[in-house]
Amino acid sequence: MSDRLIVVSSDCHAGLHISDYKPYVESRYQDLLDVAVPAQVEMMQKAEESFLIKEINDAWRAPIQQQLTGAWDYQERLRMLAGDGIAAEIIFPDGITEMNTPPFGAGLGLSPRDAVPELQWAGAMAHNRWLAEFCANDPARHVGVASIPLLFDVQQAVEAVRWCVDNGLTSVMIPTLWEDYAPYHDRKYDPFWEVCEDLGVVIHLHSGPAPNTEYFGKNFPAEDRSDELPGAMGVFTSEVTWWLYRPLTFMIWGGVFERYPKLKVVITEGGTLYMLPPWLRLMDHNYSEVHYSAKLGDFRSHLSLSPSEYFARNVAIGASCVPRRDLDLRTQLGDTKLMWGSDYPHPEGTWPQTPDYFKETFSGFPEDDGRKILGENAVEWYGLDRARLQEVANEIGPDTSIFA
Amino acid sequence: MSDRLIVVSSDCHAGLHISDYKPYVESRYQDLLDVAVPAQVEMMQKAEESFLIKEINDAWRAPIQQQLTGAWDYQERLRMLAGDGIAAEIIFPDGITEMNTPPFGAGLGLSPRDAVPELQWAGAMAHNRWLAEFCANDPARHVGVASIPLLFDVQQAVEAVRWCVDNGLTSVMIPTLWEDYAPYHDRKYDPFWEVCEDLGVVIHLHSGPAPNTEYFGKNFPAEDRSDELPGAMGVFTSEVTWWLYRPLTFMIWGGVFERYPKLKVVITEGGTLYMLPPWLRLMDHNYSEVHYSAKLGDFRSHLSLSPSEYFARNVAIGASCVPRRDLDLRTQLGDTKLMWGSDYPHPEGTWPQTPDYFKETFSGFPEDDGRKILGENAVEWYGLDRARLQEVANEIGPDTSIFA
Repeated sequence: MSDRLIVVSSDCHAGLHISDYKPYVESRYQDLLDVAVPAQVEMMQKAEESFLIKEINDAWRAPIQQQLTGAWDYQERLRMLAGDGIAAEIIFPDGITEMNTPPFGAGLGLSPRDAVPELQWAGAMAHNRWLAEFCANDPARHVGVASIPLLFDVQQAVEAVRWCVDNGLTSVMIPTLWEDYAPYHDRKYDPFWEVCEDLGVVIHLHSGPAPNTEYFGKNFPAEDRSDELPGAMGVFTSEVTWWLYRPLTFMIWGGVFERYPKLKVVITEGGTLYMLPPWLRLMDHNYSEVHYSAKLGDFRSHLSLSPSEYFARNVAIGASCVPRRDLDLRTQLGDTKLMWGSDYPHPEGTWPQTPDYFKETFSGFPEDDGRKILGENAVEWYGLDRARLQEVANEIGPDTSIFA
Repeated sequence: MSDRLIVVSSDCHAGLHISDYKPYVESRYQDLLDVAVPAQVEMMQKAEESFLIKEINDAWRAPIQQQLTGAWDYQERLRMLAGDGIAAEIIFPDGITEMNTPPFGAGLGLSPRDAVPELQWAGAMAHNRWLAEFCANDPARHVGVASIPLLFDVQQAVEAVRWCVDNGLTSVMIPTLWEDYAPYHDRKYDPFWEVCEDLGVVIHLHSGPAPNTEYFGKNFPAEDRSDELPGAMGVFTSEVTWWLYRPLTFMIWGGVFERYPKLKVVITEGGTLYMLPPWLRLMDHNYSEVHYSAKLGDFRSHLSLSPSEYFARNVAIGASCVPRRDLDLRTQLGDTKLMWGSDYPHPEGTWPQTPDYFKETFSGFPEDDGRKILGENAVEWYGLDRARLQEVANEIGPDTSIFA
């Protein structure tokens, strides 16, 4: 083992400013794009005003304006990765602060609410084209996660996955919320799980989406609500993890991992890890409990493993900027594959203080576990080129003194 | 302290067969009732076929057919309470197996989906009238929980609460799911919280409701789903507790308990208790965490206590047929007020094996904690007549040998 650690960030973000995607959008959608983009920019500005505190954001952004362009500028990004000591990264779309999000609502949320399926597909594929180019700069170091609006048309999703693989992208992201579309226990999605398993494509669910309109009242008829919905953001932060894990509840009970035993799913930026053991324990309880479930019929004979066994085999956790108190829970998490991530360039991430974070968080931590969480788990899960990444790490990686 | 324990069941059910509510329904709705009841009976038979395994249910019911009539027959109910050793009971509507549910969808779920508000109110008030009569047989022993379809019209709910109190009912139940209506952080509900606090009315949320149509696919367009949604009931059992606690997430963050510090809420039949500590810890984390929440703005300065502090002060748990392994979690639950319940006459309850359950579950259990959970917590929370209940307990209550 080298003294220099291979660090993989399992949670980074990149994408063009929404106004710059036009060259990547199919020509037949470009007129519509000219109308839609200014409207979306205005909506995002409003969202920033209501979701984010402008003063805090502006103060945070001022001294790092140039470095934030690494969200789309490759050379700037290499400097960021070097500064953080990151040898390889998993790249999701979107950054609210820089408005670098694909058009037509095809960003991190992939929300089907009020979406025009054909246009959301157009926006997603525009991002995927840009992402394939961006990662082609150095495929060993940049793992792009393609956007797949799975809900609308499963066959189109299957074809998009084939396009992604042909263009070097072997990771995809699917919607976390399905709104009025079919949830993921519906067997209509089988062809999608099948192509991902066959081609070794890793499926991702990334935190963020939640039925926000519910928290902020925008979907209630005006006559049926007051203008006061105090604490809405507190509700959001207390529920967003549940919405992120929810698709797995449906996939596990629905037998997706029974039918596709080699399928890989990553849950990214799910917040505090202490919700994970009780969630798994609850599902195992329902799987093994007899008295209560008997009257409810047979909902388990199609499953040869318990929910936590599927989880251990088929799921990894992109734990992002995980604090030490959560890392100390790993004994309760059994074989769960935890993968650190910097969340660059999001304000809640460790960047640009990642080297300090490493020292503070991993001081006195067992080196073997630390190596796994910081990089080795990701190397194995994604099948990365370890030799090549060690070369990079020898130049820019942190050394084992972080465990001192 | 007497050797005979005061046992209070915090979770019992009673109500007429749906066909027998007619005399309690306002005359102007009776013609509609004649149309609606056969339709609802048919729907319930179908639900029983898809939700419940007929053979298991029939086998369970056969030897206890007569005793199940205690769901509406007062003398039969007294024999059930004596057999179980129960001095007092909290009474919710509904029993699926006996089809004793109020008409017009006013039963345990109080679902607003597809409801006609005026009719659901008519059904709820019919049940409340019957319940007030039933409990008047012996108000010290029978605490009826009135059905209040709160979502449709807050002022109507306020008036209904006043009617309930005038008629001896000081407990109410509100919907767990709000569908497209305003969630409980909306200040439009303030007049309802206020009247409940003023009149000492205890608010209940009872387990069961969940967006079932989602699990079973009934709300997807036919062309957008397959007919196969395996494991749907597994998903339901894994999510139903979350839907039950969800209203509290909104009430806590919304500042309901800040504005109405004496308001009392009971969460009934919420399943395994080990989900409770992490849920409280997550909300406390979001309340105290700075780095992540700063950019999200101020969602806590209207709260003078932490979420778990409101919970400890304003909420009690109707833990129903709680197993020993959950009781052993009580040290993690701090001051949480746990209250046992038999769930009579539901098949998943302890009845008719309650005396055996007491011995198995409380053997070697600390007597002081056991007395609280079995009855004393409920006596205090609901302000029951302890002296009168001790008299009843001296006749029918279990003795302290269950702790041996």
